[in-house]
Amino acid sequence: MSFSSSLTSATLCGASVFPKALACSIEFPSNLSSPFASAKICLTSFPASRDLKKNATLNLTRSIAPIQGNRCHAMPVGTRDLFMTGEKFQLSDVIEGQQFDREMLSAIFDVAREMEKIEKSSSQSEILKGYLMATLFYEPSTRTRLSFESAMKRLGGEVLTTENAREFSSAAKGETLEDTIRTVEGYSDIIVMRHFESGAARRAAATANIPVINAGDGPGEHPTQALLDVYTIQSEIGKLDGITVALVGDLANGRTVRSLAYLLAKFKDVKIYFVSPEIVKMKDDIKDYLTSNAVEWEESSDLMEVASKCDVVYQTRIQRERFGERLDLYEAARGKYIVDKDLLGVMKEKAVIMHPLPRLDEITPDVDADPRAAYFRQAKNGLFIRMALLKLLLVGW
Amino acid sequence: MSFSSSLTSATLCGASVFPKALACSIEFPSNLSSPFASAKICLTSFPASRDLKKNATLNLTRSIAPIQGNRCHAMPVGTRDLFMTGEKFQLSDVIEGQQFDREMLSAIFDVAREMEKIEKSSSQSEILKGYLMATLFYEPSTRTRLSFESAMKRLGGEVLTTENAREFSSAAKGETLEDTIRTVEGYSDIIVMRHFESGAARRAAATANIPVINAGDGPGEHPTQALLDVYTIQSEIGKLDGITVALVGDLANGRTVRSLAYLLAKFKDVKIYFVSPEIVKMKDDIKDYLTSNAVEWEESSDLMEVASKCDVVYQTRIQRERFGERLDLYEAARGKYIVDKDLLGVMKEKAVIMHPLPRLDEITPDVDADPRAAYFRQAKNGLFIRMALLKLLLVGW
Amino acid sequence: MSFSSSLTSATLCGASVFPKALACSIEFPSNLSSPFASAKICLTSFPASRDLKKNATLNLTRSIAPIQGNRCHAMPVGTRDLFMTGEKFQLSDVIEGQQFDREMLSAIFDVAREMEKIEKSSSQSEILKGYLMATLFYEPSTRTRLSFESAMKRLGGEVLTTENAREFSSAAKGETLEDTIRTVEGYSDIIVMRHFESGAARRAAATANIPVINAGDGPGEHPTQALLDVYTIQSEIGKLDGITVALVGDLANGRTVRSLAYLLAKFKDVKIYFVSPEIVKMKDDIKDYLTSNAVEWEESSDLMEVASKCDVVYQTRIQRERFGERLDLYEAARGKYIVDKDLLGVMKEKAVIMHPLPRLDEITPDVDADPRAAYFRQAKNGLFIRMALLKLLLVGW
Repeated sequence: MSFSSSLTSATLCGASVFPKALACSIEFPSNLSSPFASAKICLTSFPASRDLKKNATLNLTRSIAPIQGNRCHAMPVGTRDLFMTGEKFQLSDVIEGQQFDREMLSAIFDVAREMEKIEKSSSQSEILKGYLMATLFYEPSTRTRLSFESAMKRLGGEVLTTENAREFSSAAKGETLEDTIRTVEGYSDIIVMRHFESGAARRAAATANIPVINAGDGPGEHPTQALLDVYTIQSEIGKLDGITVALVGDLANGRTVRSLAYLLAKFKDVKIYFVSPEIVKMKDDIKDYLTSNAVEWEESSDLMEVASKCDVVYQTRIQRERFGERLDLYEAARGKYIVDKDLLGVMKEKAVIMHPLPRLDEITPDVDADPRAAYFRQAKNGLFIRMALLKLLLVGW
Repeated sequence: MSFSSSLTSATLCGASVFPKALACSIEFPSNLSSPFASAKICLTSFPASRDLKKNATLNLTRSIAPIQGNRCHAMPVGTRDLFMTGEKFQLSDVIEGQQFDREMLSAIFDVAREMEKIEKSSSQSEILKGYLMATLFYEPSTRTRLSFESAMKRLGGEVLTTENAREFSSAAKGETLEDTIRTVEGYSDIIVMRHFESGAARRAAATANIPVINAGDGPGEHPTQALLDVYTIQSEIGKLDGITVALVGDLANGRTVRSLAYLLAKFKDVKIYFVSPEIVKMKDDIKDYLTSNAVEWEESSDLMEVASKCDVVYQTRIQRERFGERLDLYEAARGKYIVDKDLLGVMKEKAVIMHPLPRLDEITPDVDADPRAAYFRQAKNGLFIRMALLKLLLVGW
Repeated sequence: MSFSSSLTSATLCGASVFPKALACSIEFPSNLSSPFASAKICLTSFPASRDLKKNATLNLTRSIAPIQGNRCHAMPVGTRDLFMTGEKFQLSDVIEGQQFDREMLSAIFDVAREMEKIEKSSSQSEILKGYLMATLFYEPSTRTRLSFESAMKRLGGEVLTTENAREFSSAAKGETLEDTIRTVEGYSDIIVMRHFESGAARRAAATANIPVINAGDGPGEHPTQALLDVYTIQSEIGKLDGITVALVGDLANGRTVRSLAYLLAKFKDVKIYFVSPEIVKMKDDIKDYLTSNAVEWEESSDLMEVASKCDVVYQTRIQRERFGERLDLYEAARGKYIVDKDLLGVMKEKAVIMHPLPRLDEITPDVDADPRAAYFRQAKNGLFIRMALLKLLLVGW
């Protein structure tokens, strides 16, 4: 976003473009008889001071003094995860999938599509040049970590990494999460945190004066996975309203299918099929949520029949670690619903198969070459979604 | 430092500005009748060849041949940790707090203050662009490592990381530290090393032809922590002469309080109170050192009374790992001296509370919001001190 | 390589300069009556789109349409590890030492020598700016990893690191190597992989659409070590034909000596001596290979006598881990052939001692200061070789 285009859009929508972490207001000479002389214009396309407090109050009413030229200073914004200003919302943290409504998702997906172009481009983006991301991983998740770090570096930013903060850091000496965050925020501009405890991301965000992205907190949330799943459906199917989706596999423990169900409820005329071994059925809280949001859902034990009707077959791994000693139950569950060539045979021509990865044998390798196998494109979409979120949190729209 | 200003200052102080790791001498045409035609002028503001040997001998007397324009080549400097040339000292390694006298500390703190401005600035510094730092950590210390890596990246430099060199590297196969250093110095421009053995940093520095910074060697030294502690007192209190300091908690095992006591002895009219459980009292070597350096000190068991008189209350964690099986002794020791709201009540208005972090419950969380709670600012100061040292070691003043 | 020089060399050798991973063809206006108007000219000195498939077919026959100015687009190349086009070969992966013939080695060494200049230069190279290397290490090898990461960063590229992919990644959950590669290639431009299984690098390369470098796969290959060994002999001795080489130590298990023997067989009039404890003798496959390639070889138990005749004494570590419970055999083997001052006394003045490192006591420390001790220069050469390979794989000649 260039200076002039920002200015224009800000003018048109009434100072609507407030960047999250960094805002820069320009005060105009009072003798400039401009229609927007009494409004602050926020520009986001260049890094301002990093020394901002996102929790400070937003001041939209400061008087405008006559000055020579432009004066640019920090304008702290936001006391919640996000707020709406004019047409654009302002993101200050990414904590859970539910914080996004369909308009926000649509706006983020627009940015993600810009990111696809940047990633494919021959020249190195410098959108996040000078910004430093700390990846604070209390449990290892190489895939998620590399995806975030690639996103930051593709945009010209830099990274500080902790691959196993639980074992290595001062957490082992008994330091609270809050103290760790207060220290790490002094060394970086944004924190991407993976934690083993549900709610840890929200605690971190409440403490931090810089943006926090939840990269998974225990059995809790993994919002960037939820966003990339919805983005993939949008990209592959071309729409989110009116689609039919089968959620298959471990629906009791699978964080991704639960989050996806929540997000799909924000769209119209969605129909969801649950196909899972009895022992890992979708829990009632999600079913009740869907019912109360007028989302049609149905349980089925016939994957072939369901797959023939769906736009999306979302397969998941049966997680062995959830079965403890009962390997017999695990073996029974894992072999029950497999996506294979036979299933491809009954699926619609334009349908897609998704999977959050890693997969074991719940999708057979001979499916990979089919154009409907979307799971590696889905993994790649994680990069674009994370690039978009990093951009929005650090430099705004 | 620009070319011309360097030149000027070098001229004025008689070739005094020798950069540590990299020196670049300019030979002037002999027909230039300059007052400094027979002296070498060292410039430090741009990276010269990395292929320098810091241990080579310094040659100040080489003849000057008539040449066209400027010729810039490496001038190896320094055989000790530092040496004085004119007004500025030359740093070649950072091994222990004691290597610095008060003039050096003052000069380093000036650079640290410049670093504060750079860190807060909107644009990416390129002071260390093209330089590569290897963080060789034989034991994990996430906080210290991230602080050094942030410092390097804030200055535009790059980092090679080893988070757990002891377990992962060829050290496990029996390679000597010296051999590891000889290899790693081929891949980087500066080594930041954390080691589990006292004296390891000195051995590394003796071997390396590039600068080495000690990021903690076992029970030995942790000089950057000592520097940031003194810098914090200077920044918060505004002076180092004439201050009264309480060192509280584990004074027997705490590396930081021992180093701080050493450094405070370099200043005038300092008074130190030791407040600790009997079992972890300050050892005699430090007491004797203070006495022989005319530093007034006193032991006390009344923290309230002491705190009311002090400019600095430096609290430390009682380290459970030092008590082995005697958890009863640990529990008795840890609860004895707590910094809490009551203590704040008796402290001076301009005093500060410091802590090397991580803390457990020796400072209660309700103290954090008090403006005298300086420990998170102290952690941040570690960034500025490390930026300053990296700059001084790699490109000089 | 600048635009114009590229163009010139391409013209002279008939469109011979095809970059491996990235090729960019320029189509000329058809009304330009140029002698090469019907040929595509490939330029390699700037990053083109990263979205290339190295496995796609090479199209040399597309028609040339009249256009305004230059149009640059991706030209996918290569279906094998490398192929020859005109004078230059095209590298798409580095899997094993045997993939290189002596002409290729010579060409790579020319690039490595350029890399030496770049590494010593004062300014940061931007040859690989915008490129991202993923170091996917399934077993730790700090030395090799740091060397690759330094190489990438010295050329202006960026790095994503996984230090212990085996334990930390989704591999632990049972994901196949192929799936991991398909995911990681979405986040990076080149993969450097260390694996515990022989053949893993070839499998990864067969899957990946971006270049793969084998950084060691179990008891299999470690081609960059083999290249740096040969490069070191070339640099130190000045030639590879007609040299006499002693391979000393653990010849049964040492991957490096086996690879080196293979590569030396590509040169003329090479004589190899094997000097090892009986229990770790060189295996017959290598001996047979040398014999069938007309390389003279001889086993000897007299290191002094052999060393006096050799240009290169290549010492290796006896690997304790190969002896299991039989520490008595290990102790007997390890002390048998030591390179020390006495051995230096009989060696030729221009000979060199090499060692892949880490060493224990098979070379005594008092040898290090002798100019013939080449092992730390050898380690440094690994940096130049890896810089050269990264450049060739990512931007071509």
